Amino acid sequence: MPTISERGMNMPQSPIRKLSPLAVAAAERGIHVYHLNIGQPDLPTPQCALDAVKHLDRKVLEYSPSEGFKSYREKLTKYYASYNIDVTPDDIIITSGGSEAVLFAFLSCLNPGDEIIVPEPAYANYMAFAVAAGARIRTIATTIEEGFSLPKVEKFEALIGDRTRAILICNPNNPTGYLYTRREMNQIRDLVKKHDLYLFSDEVYREFIYTGSPYISACHLKGIEQNVILIDSVSKRYSECGIRIGALITKNKTVRQAVMKFCQARLSPPLLGQIVAEASLEAPDSYMREVYDEYVERRKCLIDGLNRIPGCYSPVPMGAFYTTAQLPVDDAEKFCAWCLTDFSWEGETVMMAPASGFYTTPGSGRDQVRIAYVLNKEDLKRALFVLRKALEQYPGRTLRL
Amino acid sequence: MPTISERGMNMPQSPIRKLSPLAVAAAERGIHVYHLNIGQPDLPTPQCALDAVKHLDRKVLEYSPSEGFKSYREKLTKYYASYNIDVTPDDIIITSGGSEAVLFAFLSCLNPGDEIIVPEPAYANYMAFAVAAGARIRTIATTIEEGFSLPKVEKFEALIGDRTRAILICNPNNPTGYLYTRREMNQIRDLVKKHDLYLFSDEVYREFIYTGSPYISACHLKGIEQNVILIDSVSKRYSECGIRIGALITKNKTVRQAVMKFCQARLSPPLLGQIVAEASLEAPDSYMREVYDEYVERRKCLIDGLNRIPGCYSPVPMGAFYTTAQLPVDDAEKFCAWCLTDFSWEGETVMMAPASGFYTTPGSGRDQVRIAYVLNKEDLKRALFVLRKALEQYPGRTLRL
Repeated sequence: MPTISERGMNMPQSPIRKLSPLAVAAAERGIHVYHLNIGQPDLPTPQCALDAVKHLDRKVLEYSPSEGFKSYREKLTKYYASYNIDVTPDDIIITSGGSEAVLFAFLSCLNPGDEIIVPEPAYANYMAFAVAAGARIRTIATTIEEGFSLPKVEKFEALIGDRTRAILICNPNNPTGYLYTRREMNQIRDLVKKHDLYLFSDEVYREFIYTGSPYISACHLKGIEQNVILIDSVSKRYSECGIRIGALITKNKTVRQAVMKFCQARLSPPLLGQIVAEASLEAPDSYMREVYDEYVERRKCLIDGLNRIPGCYSPVPMGAFYTTAQLPVDDAEKFCAWCLTDFSWEGETVMMAPASGFYTTPGSGRDQVRIAYVLNKEDLKRALFVLRKALEQYPGRTLRL
Repeated sequence: MPTISERGMNMPQSPIRKLSPLAVAAAERGIHVYHLNIGQPDLPTPQCALDAVKHLDRKVLEYSPSEGFKSYREKLTKYYASYNIDVTPDDIIITSGGSEAVLFAFLSCLNPGDEIIVPEPAYANYMAFAVAAGARIRTIATTIEEGFSLPKVEKFEALIGDRTRAILICNPNNPTGYLYTRREMNQIRDLVKKHDLYLFSDEVYREFIYTGSPYISACHLKGIEQNVILIDSVSKRYSECGIRIGALITKNKTVRQAVMKFCQARLSPPLLGQIVAEASLEAPDSYMREVYDEYVERRKCLIDGLNRIPGCYSPVPMGAFYTTAQLPVDDAEKFCAWCLTDFSWEGETVMMAPASGFYTTPGSGRDQVRIAYVLNKEDLKRALFVLRKALEQYPGRTLRL
């Protein structure tokens, strides 16, 4: 029997989905599982988007252009303009989710062995795509004590070497909810310029910023236009994660030409997803406002609730719909698994993503979890209650009751 | 400005799509282009499949499982059983098109530098995915003179070395329409077994076999069950290329576990596409029969028509809906481009895929094109007429008229 590849072995398992078989087994035992592990909102997809597929008037579900429909890319330029991001349809390549945009950016910009600097904790799948591309993620620690703010420039400089090719940020951040300040973004700009690096900027949560602080896109930074690759997705914005529509956006024509070769190899992004995504741009302001207001309340509900549980701590996330919280447990991964295998309270339990999978530094995030506030408030409250009970019963709890 | 990656530079451009900008420009000049370049059938998607999306009763278009819906995978086992392929739902991983199945198979099974033996001409995107995975394609020539039949075992043995890890076949074949015989499949089986190789077998055209010859799947071969990775797609079967639903199927659990890590990193295959694909399994026999009969007629129309054009030659393809044909031209790539830029007949022209992009051996296929017979007979006849006119006018023709 032939062996599998090294990258197949080294590939990290997604911390968001690795406990899924345990959750399935719990559900099969009749236990209701509150899914706090994955950024899958329960909010409805815009009605106009659902209507677009329901009124489909095609007879053949054929390939679309490798770069995505022109009509969709044209409309997207107006969307980006509303965020003061100046792009043309040619700057936009439609991808199969933000995931494919990350993978194609890595494949197009990085050689095997090249290094990407990423503040950690970081969205775990970046590491997976780096393994796929043979690139190496070098992480810079941010800490829960400092609210996950960006480390000083010296920490970056210390990591930058011959093989450093890129900085990757997620802003607003998954998994911490942190929003980079103008000062921090300027610091990144200066580093990118000084060392001529790529800046991969994943900004899929720009709709979800809960403070008065400004959203500074990588595309707003002057003088590094040829270095910036924007990663985007409609998944979270319109609660349509399943349609797999994202985008890779850059002013750098050489990069776009390389990316397009990968796009042509996979022929086209999903047709039906593009129809939904294009229609979603027509979602009324009231839809976006209601979604936003809902997250504001959920955030308050979750963070207040978490910080009232003895031994728990969460900073207040400024954006996205996640928080990375500290729990009074010996090992959050064990605890999360235990919640699914050995615990239930009145027939219910919780599923969370152990935060260690969002760090590459061994031992980091060991007592932390990522929690997504994508459930309605009643469910969130109930989930918090069940979590409290779980923490009381968990044999590896570190807080004396 | 940072440079792009070596693989971004080395990545071959898809021969199917590389002339697309010229075709767009021709269309913008008001010229009607017959698309013989791409395997996009004009046949309707099954009505039951279109109805499934039209009657969508979901409020949230959410992520599906990374491995695809269980209900769909369960139904697929019955479909495969009808071809005497014995698989369980666990053996099946749903992918974003057959393309993703190829990429994930390469990433999971091959290390950078590993070699895959592929009979050429071959589906060009295999080479692209090999570049993405850092693997090396070693090709074995098949020739138009011998109807693209498989070379003798000695030719394979001569190529097999320390880095050889896999054989890749497409059966029925794209771009030649060749169908491997039982003897040829047994020869491949023996090679795979002797050298403990992976056998990647792309069998997306199994519905389209036009001779009485049996379809021998790689999954029918005894004794190499752990070596076989079946690549599949619903794109061609149901004329739904745009939905991006394929599958990677293997009895090898270790490979499946590695593939699943890549699947989890990209979260899920397209939701709406899966709904369409699952419904397509209910397409009536009459749909499949009509589609089949239509291709039988188109094949006859195209091949007879081609062989009547002076200097043209095409073997009779046994399956799929392509042929690789020889044209009386100096350079088929130049000719195909010229058809789009400098030629039209009564406001019409043809777009074909130059075959050189399906070969890795320099100079091979220089006077060949791949033609897909995915247009209705009237259009095919007209396209053949226009092709004849183009060959008469092309300055680089090699046949004295």
